[in-house]
Amino acid sequence: MINKLIAKIKSTKAPIVVGLDPMLKFVPEHIKKKAFSELGETLEGAAEAIWLYNRELVDAIYDIVPAVKPQIAMYEQFGIPGLMAFKKTVDYCKGKGLVVIADIKRGDIGSTSEAYAAGHLGKVQVGSRYHYSFDEDFATVNPYLGSDGIKPFIKVCQEEKKGLFILVKTSNPSSGEFQDRMVATGTQAGGAGGIAFGDRPLYEIVGEQVARWGEEHMGGSYSYIGAVVGATYPEMGKALRRIMPKSFILVPGYGAQGGKGKDLVHFFHEDGLGAIINSSRGIIAAYQQEKYASFGPEHFADAARAAVEDMREDIADALNNR
Amino acid sequence: MINKLIAKIKSTKAPIVVGLDPMLKFVPEHIKKKAFSELGETLEGAAEAIWLYNRELVDAIYDIVPAVKPQIAMYEQFGIPGLMAFKKTVDYCKGKGLVVIADIKRGDIGSTSEAYAAGHLGKVQVGSRYHYSFDEDFATVNPYLGSDGIKPFIKVCQEEKKGLFILVKTSNPSSGEFQDRMVATGTQAGGAGGIAFGDRPLYEIVGEQVARWGEEHMGGSYSYIGAVVGATYPEMGKALRRIMPKSFILVPGYGAQGGKGKDLVHFFHEDGLGAIINSSRGIIAAYQQEKYASFGPEHFADAARAAVEDMREDIADALNNR
Repeated sequence: MINKLIAKIKSTKAPIVVGLDPMLKFVPEHIKKKAFSELGETLEGAAEAIWLYNRELVDAIYDIVPAVKPQIAMYEQFGIPGLMAFKKTVDYCKGKGLVVIADIKRGDIGSTSEAYAAGHLGKVQVGSRYHYSFDEDFATVNPYLGSDGIKPFIKVCQEEKKGLFILVKTSNPSSGEFQDRMVATGTQAGGAGGIAFGDRPLYEIVGEQVARWGEEHMGGSYSYIGAVVGATYPEMGKALRRIMPKSFILVPGYGAQGGKGKDLVHFFHEDGLGAIINSSRGIIAAYQQEKYASFGPEHFADAARAAVEDMREDIADALNNR
Repeated sequence: MINKLIAKIKSTKAPIVVGLDPMLKFVPEHIKKKAFSELGETLEGAAEAIWLYNRELVDAIYDIVPAVKPQIAMYEQFGIPGLMAFKKTVDYCKGKGLVVIADIKRGDIGSTSEAYAAGHLGKVQVGSRYHYSFDEDFATVNPYLGSDGIKPFIKVCQEEKKGLFILVKTSNPSSGEFQDRMVATGTQAGGAGGIAFGDRPLYEIVGEQVARWGEEHMGGSYSYIGAVVGATYPEMGKALRRIMPKSFILVPGYGAQGGKGKDLVHFFHEDGLGAIINSSRGIIAAYQQEKYASFGPEHFADAARAAVEDMREDIADALNNR
């Protein structure tokens, strides 16, 4: 699947993934009106609204981006109907040829991670039969529980030719609270009483582990075990690019969270590959920005397409001028 | 909700939570046969099997335990039908008066954690109406993203009188890979070049943060912001009990994962409160153990009840003899 992702990045010339994170406040009034008049202001009505919104967005952008990244929380909050809209969105995007990166940030003890991996990337056994439940192409996972929480995902990726993006350094303001803690690695001489110095931030330690897993699981020139590193921390991105040379980096935080094209150049290798930049509300709710307001809510999907084209240009300019 | 949990622990004399983690290999053949003959070896058939299994288990134990902890991964792996069985299980347990701790281990950037918190512990807005989606009593959350990933959960807990258990030190074998890293806290004098010594394990730093959140959000004598600390690391549990005096500790890893009653005493305060011990397969699949084999698969729920009673006794003995 990493090779499909790379081929699509090359053919679209867009190292971009569109975050399908459909908060109801992004959904134009005319769509909500339609959904609520049919199903009421219910969980079913909310799910129908986000599904109609997603479908129109996907129809408008599927030919110019390689991938989408639905954030499952935005669906899960509406309970079972919301999760049905998630599943419909995943299936619809795959039908359009898009690579689907499920932003699920799961991660647990071994036997539990096995269940998540089977349900999202692989297949489950029921009696003598096997079924694919959610069947996304990539998933994001949380590393806090260490390798026995990650390995079941890697195993399924290997069997099913899927891929992972492991959280290394996240884009949010407080990500440093634990991720930036200086950790004693024992690579320097110990301090007083044999205590090692805190010489490396935790995110680098996690990044090194991702790099090791990555090198053992290569798709072609890149590994199918990638990392998440926020656009909001470009200097750390630079260091992590070096630490994980074979890993694709999924970079959230462009646009609404503050990241800009010029902050992103260090996430890419010289060949222009190695990173895929996510934008969510900056694209799907572009019509709510002054810049794209002239499209109007009825043409929100055209506004999204224009925002993708501008983002592609911003990144290409930054890469050409580095 | 923490006060309800404490009251129920006192009335049942059982600081025990039963993990409703229904892997199909635990479900007796006669139940699978019934479910599959109605619905086939499908996701729906699997979901029906785990629901029938859960219902019988809950009927057998609801009067002797204060709480259950469904692990959502075991349901999510069966897609939408599985998640419907999760929801039915949560509702059924609440109807029986049990406290429901949803083992979801969610955690994301702020706006996304808001969605998870609303969907699992609070309510979502659809137009002018509000709906409770999953509506569990407590949820487990992952701290890797720092406080802006946790605070939305705390806010909802405050509004809805719910609670959290934040992962501090997990029970799995590789939990130490990142959680045990020695971190420089700056509380000791710096080393050469002003670099601080790595003097505290990361889990203690996370534990201190949980303690701070805990003290700001008290239910009564205990906080509704608790922690997860594995039974498999009793010495660390001892230190964390001191660090988080006001927090209830949810302790997984008893039984199947290797923890025993005598390992658990340090998780409790002198008043016998402050901890709740989880057992999953050790109870729900007790009939598969030699010790309880005489019950037979038809009476798996009676075996589970006997296993709860033995566990209660094991913990009480350990607490009396400390």
